[in-house]
Amino acid sequence: MSETGATAILKEEVDIVIPTIRNLEFLEKWRAFFEPYHLIIVQDGDPSKVIKVPEGFDYELYNRNDINRILGPKAHCISFKDSACRCFGFLLSKKKYIFTIDDDCFVAKDPSGKEINALEQHLKNLLTPSTPFFFNTLYDPFREGTDFVRGYPFSLREGVPTAASHGLWLNVPDYDAPTQLVKPLERNTRYVDAVMTIPKGTLFPMCGMNLAFNRELIGPAMYFGLMGEGQPIGRYDDMWAGWCMKVISDHLGLGVKTGLPYIWHSKASNPFVNLKKEYKGIYWQEELIPFFQSVSLPKECTTAQKCYVELSKQVRAKLGKVDEYFNKLADTMVTWIEAWEELNPSGPPKSDALPNGSAK
Amino acid sequence: MSETGATAILKEEVDIVIPTIRNLEFLEKWRAFFEPYHLIIVQDGDPSKVIKVPEGFDYELYNRNDINRILGPKAHCISFKDSACRCFGFLLSKKKYIFTIDDDCFVAKDPSGKEINALEQHLKNLLTPSTPFFFNTLYDPFREGTDFVRGYPFSLREGVPTAASHGLWLNVPDYDAPTQLVKPLERNTRYVDAVMTIPKGTLFPMCGMNLAFNRELIGPAMYFGLMGEGQPIGRYDDMWAGWCMKVISDHLGLGVKTGLPYIWHSKASNPFVNLKKEYKGIYWQEELIPFFQSVSLPKECTTAQKCYVELSKQVRAKLGKVDEYFNKLADTMVTWIEAWEELNPSGPPKSDALPNGSAK
Repeated sequence: MSETGATAILKEEVDIVIPTIRNLEFLEKWRAFFEPYHLIIVQDGDPSKVIKVPEGFDYELYNRNDINRILGPKAHCISFKDSACRCFGFLLSKKKYIFTIDDDCFVAKDPSGKEINALEQHLKNLLTPSTPFFFNTLYDPFREGTDFVRGYPFSLREGVPTAASHGLWLNVPDYDAPTQLVKPLERNTRYVDAVMTIPKGTLFPMCGMNLAFNRELIGPAMYFGLMGEGQPIGRYDDMWAGWCMKVISDHLGLGVKTGLPYIWHSKASNPFVNLKKEYKGIYWQEELIPFFQSVSLPKECTTAQKCYVELSKQVRAKLGKVDEYFNKLADTMVTWIEAWEELNPSGPPKSDALPNGSAK
Repeated sequence: MSETGATAILKEEVDIVIPTIRNLEFLEKWRAFFEPYHLIIVQDGDPSKVIKVPEGFDYELYNRNDINRILGPKAHCISFKDSACRCFGFLLSKKKYIFTIDDDCFVAKDPSGKEINALEQHLKNLLTPSTPFFFNTLYDPFREGTDFVRGYPFSLREGVPTAASHGLWLNVPDYDAPTQLVKPLERNTRYVDAVMTIPKGTLFPMCGMNLAFNRELIGPAMYFGLMGEGQPIGRYDDMWAGWCMKVISDHLGLGVKTGLPYIWHSKASNPFVNLKKEYKGIYWQEELIPFFQSVSLPKECTTAQKCYVELSKQVRAKLGKVDEYFNKLADTMVTWIEAWEELNPSGPPKSDALPNGSAK
């Protein structure tokens, strides 16, 4: 499909969700690509501060007061003073596709020097099927100029609907605090011209900096957890969402892609601050990963909502003993789904809403 | 490690195995890269034909008469008139690493125009660990300029020894006959600058055109089956080896990488001839893939040999009903292991032979 074609078709079906814009240059730099789209900005800190959005953008802006007003007693499921608050935008959107991006991410260039339209590439990834059941050595077989290679079973070539598209970062890589401390100057200069499906049964570290997804298919699983003020952990919001989203996508027969598009990640966050936020996550994840690798969802769980509620029960049963935090998180996972159903009362996605045919 | 460093260390530990050289230019084109290494050439057809190897190469050449003489009653496990005969070279080698390449594969160039030393890259892939238990979104974390990303469990960062390195092809892609017929002019021009581990539990279509492996770790599983004259199927030799090798690597805690290096694949084979060779494979594979996806090996199988013999029993039990061919293949898998043990009497690899520490 041509770039303009995808843009034209989907303009009315996409929301761009941004957690707090501190960098005034951010929207100006993206103007050519974002101006046609609707923005949802979720402010993560002090609601009395004013975010100045430049002229010409079509946007809604929500701060903590709005979150409290709209969600009432359920507002505690949205993190405070943390970019995890972005998932409030996922809840409020009425669009089919979400692109979420951080305000320190700018337009990257491909090796020919051309500016990369990140949203356009995400939509291409989401609009073509995924292939989670068998690995294609020439990467995404639905990209132009490539296909399934010899030995790829024909019965699997239809693929499955794509739930999420995980984009990457040039310049500052997404490293944890220990790696930042050890390699403060390492920059990612390698442009890998590939999109691929992460195989079924394989977990990955999902980063929320440059991420798109089909909200109808997987939105309820894109909860960024409890981080920031009052919580014992930070910088695991996107990881949590990624683990949950991947096991649910695997169960529902949906695909997750990673690779293109790149954005330019401008600055590394402070590794000392990050270490403080991360240190519990660094050892908790040693128990969380085996948990998620062994999650099994019953076949009655036929929607992302049902899967997510079931997962919350397993989190309580298996992770409550790791730390009391996970009991609280399990409760809040249920609150999130209640909020989702309240604000999205239409129920599960209609089967004709699937972009690439029915889920298997 | 520097390229010259890897070359210098490993010159005495590598054999290059080539099935029949029909193209006289082939070795001349590779002279700068292959001349320091020992070659094993296995001639696949009429033994009275003479393969002319240019001056300056260090090589052994085996034809059908040699195979019959050396293997005696076991010689039937080596295919006749098919490039599957290459595995005879794997059997005879006494080296730790094998690089096997087809005679229509030439030196490719990277995007900067530099000639790619394919063997060098394969050795880098084999000498660094694999990461089959969790996906790293910046690809092989052991390449220069990159690392494990945030959220990658620290307990998994040591990785596991790498059993095999699967390289790709610029120009003519490795398509099956139906795809060749539908897209006769499609060429692969996309240089994807990545190496990655194929996750545990995920199968892939392994192509024998540009392939390297650690013979001590996985050699006995690299049997290319029964193809060519007298057999009902062709062009599935490398696929068969790939499925067997991958399930055995997964069981033994070894890794398989794919991606770089590229070679230049010069010409597409005849799609009509290919269709005749492939057509049974195309429908058989619909039953073979689910079989290999469900293979489970008992924990007593601690070496590639033991795994392979056990796999042969499961092939007979589960695939014999697909076609009588698989009963014959199951027998020949055992013959192959007997031949392996006869020619490689030293037993399983010593644990200090592992390049990246012990298998888990």
